[in-house]
Amino acid sequence: MKIQAYAAASPKAAFEPFEYEAGELRADDVLVEVEHCGLCHSDLSMLNNDWGRTAYPFVGGHEGVGKIVAIGDHVTHLKVDQHVGVGWFSGSCMHCQECMSGHHNRCGTVEETIVNRHGGFASHVLCKAEWALPIPEALDASKVGPLFCGGLTVFNPLVQNNIRPTQRVGVIGIGGLGHLALQFSNKWGCEVTAFSTSPDKEAEARKLGAHHFVNSKDESALKKIAGSLDMVLVAVNVGLDWSAYLNILRPGGVLHFVGAAPTSEFIPFQLIGGQKSISGSPLGSPATAVDMLEFCARHDLAPVTEHFPLAQINEAFEHLESGKARYRIVLDN
Amino acid sequence: MKIQAYAAASPKAAFEPFEYEAGELRADDVLVEVEHCGLCHSDLSMLNNDWGRTAYPFVGGHEGVGKIVAIGDHVTHLKVDQHVGVGWFSGSCMHCQECMSGHHNRCGTVEETIVNRHGGFASHVLCKAEWALPIPEALDASKVGPLFCGGLTVFNPLVQNNIRPTQRVGVIGIGGLGHLALQFSNKWGCEVTAFSTSPDKEAEARKLGAHHFVNSKDESALKKIAGSLDMVLVAVNVGLDWSAYLNILRPGGVLHFVGAAPTSEFIPFQLIGGQKSISGSPLGSPATAVDMLEFCARHDLAPVTEHFPLAQINEAFEHLESGKARYRIVLDN
Repeated sequence: MKIQAYAAASPKAAFEPFEYEAGELRADDVLVEVEHCGLCHSDLSMLNNDWGRTAYPFVGGHEGVGKIVAIGDHVTHLKVDQHVGVGWFSGSCMHCQECMSGHHNRCGTVEETIVNRHGGFASHVLCKAEWALPIPEALDASKVGPLFCGGLTVFNPLVQNNIRPTQRVGVIGIGGLGHLALQFSNKWGCEVTAFSTSPDKEAEARKLGAHHFVNSKDESALKKIAGSLDMVLVAVNVGLDWSAYLNILRPGGVLHFVGAAPTSEFIPFQLIGGQKSISGSPLGSPATAVDMLEFCARHDLAPVTEHFPLAQINEAFEHLESGKARYRIVLDN
Repeated sequence: MKIQAYAAASPKAAFEPFEYEAGELRADDVLVEVEHCGLCHSDLSMLNNDWGRTAYPFVGGHEGVGKIVAIGDHVTHLKVDQHVGVGWFSGSCMHCQECMSGHHNRCGTVEETIVNRHGGFASHVLCKAEWALPIPEALDASKVGPLFCGGLTVFNPLVQNNIRPTQRVGVIGIGGLGHLALQFSNKWGCEVTAFSTSPDKEAEARKLGAHHFVNSKDESALKKIAGSLDMVLVAVNVGLDWSAYLNILRPGGVLHFVGAAPTSEFIPFQLIGGQKSISGSPLGSPATAVDMLEFCARHDLAPVTEHFPLAQINEAFEHLESGKARYRIVLDN
């Protein structure tokens, strides 16, 4: 079977129609007919080979949503015609200590949709069954794609850090990731502070769930809230004064990175004094994703999306690169 | 009442006999007649004013053990003649959110024995009752002093990081702190790796509970154990290649500082990939100290000590400074 995709032939090249052979369906695979696929900033980083791990022709897309059209012989818990999402990860070994402990996202041989195979900017995408996640009926399939990378990335820290509803959460960067983190943290029951350098985002940040809005580079504003937050989520990939952010944490608080910020300094004594920590995480496990989807259905949460037809993929990338996307782009088939 | 102490008049000065007035006993205080007092490396740092917060005349000593000789009017849970220990902290507000949550060591106005008052290199030391910790009868009072600073400092990370007996713990630096961390981690049920630059410490490290011994600067040895440890406890105050140590952590692992190492670099991406963290902690709460004392009694654990009469305090400091102490010095009254 032939899959119709869009591929870039080299770094920064435009996407062109690209056809490839799906190959025989493996016993643990499912084949998903893509209806919608989110466009994530990491698709752009991969297109540009920013991380030195892109293979060309490159087919991006790791927030795919669609209908299962074929399942492998060993797959018993999914069925054809079921709607599923396929995120950044789309395969794990299923038998290592991490997989067996429910941490499939930490599997040493976890498979990445746009690294180990061709992605979802296509008619179809392949996925191992454990990472094909059924979409609750209450959710709008056209908007959920971004949950499978951006959403899971910022939902997982709430779980991993055992954040309680009585606590206070800060989110640095109100973009594709941050706008979901605000929604999650608010419905999690927390007091939420948005940090951004764009004052024009304040009204929207508050609408999305922020109780407070702080300019992320305003030193005196940061000093005023010293010792007040339990978790600060870093959803930007730029360097900031992390010491100032450690300072706004309460004792026991955590500065948690999901954005690949540049190499930075830390002062061990600052961690010791307030029993603080700096941590990070890569997406989340399939079980966490299922919890996230149910949480979104329960609280009527969704990414704020802008839509382009898949055929306008190059225009969509330009829009993303311009920094004007509010907040997450979805390509529709 | 007059207290007979030893004080240094200025940075790096020798200790001389020094008498001061105890003052009236406050309602929440206890007065302890010091029988033994550990000499900790931070006494040396304070003597030298390394942290810029020493007041002179300086009376060190924050690992005191002795008999209560007087209790304030409000103290009902302790009695005269009871044996207690007095550590780095010796007072907390008892009503802030941290104190009320059992995290008295994170209280914003926590009182430090050798900063907020005169320490235990003396006939007596004052302490607020909540930090005067009864010593289980099964323990040898002459040896337990070092538990109240060094011991609690390395016991707390096992509690705080929720270390489980099935996990693997590394300890960097086999000195006053590390030799206790090895004992605790071993009896905690963990597989224990000692990291040291002193090959002559291997045999003793193994006797103290290490299952493995690795030269802490041997890059190839570190590479061999990549991805294998759940917690690495940093009990040194020097800089090392922390990226290499993050690399020996399993997914979800933590690099935990109790030693005030110098400002260092971290790579957010390295934390994200393996869901790792860098953390730190200041001693532990009184409740954790009680657990530690019971754990020591249960498993017959004790600091390895060398003893000097209090009158030889200057010789004891010289011995500490020489790096030859094995492993913890106690001054006896």
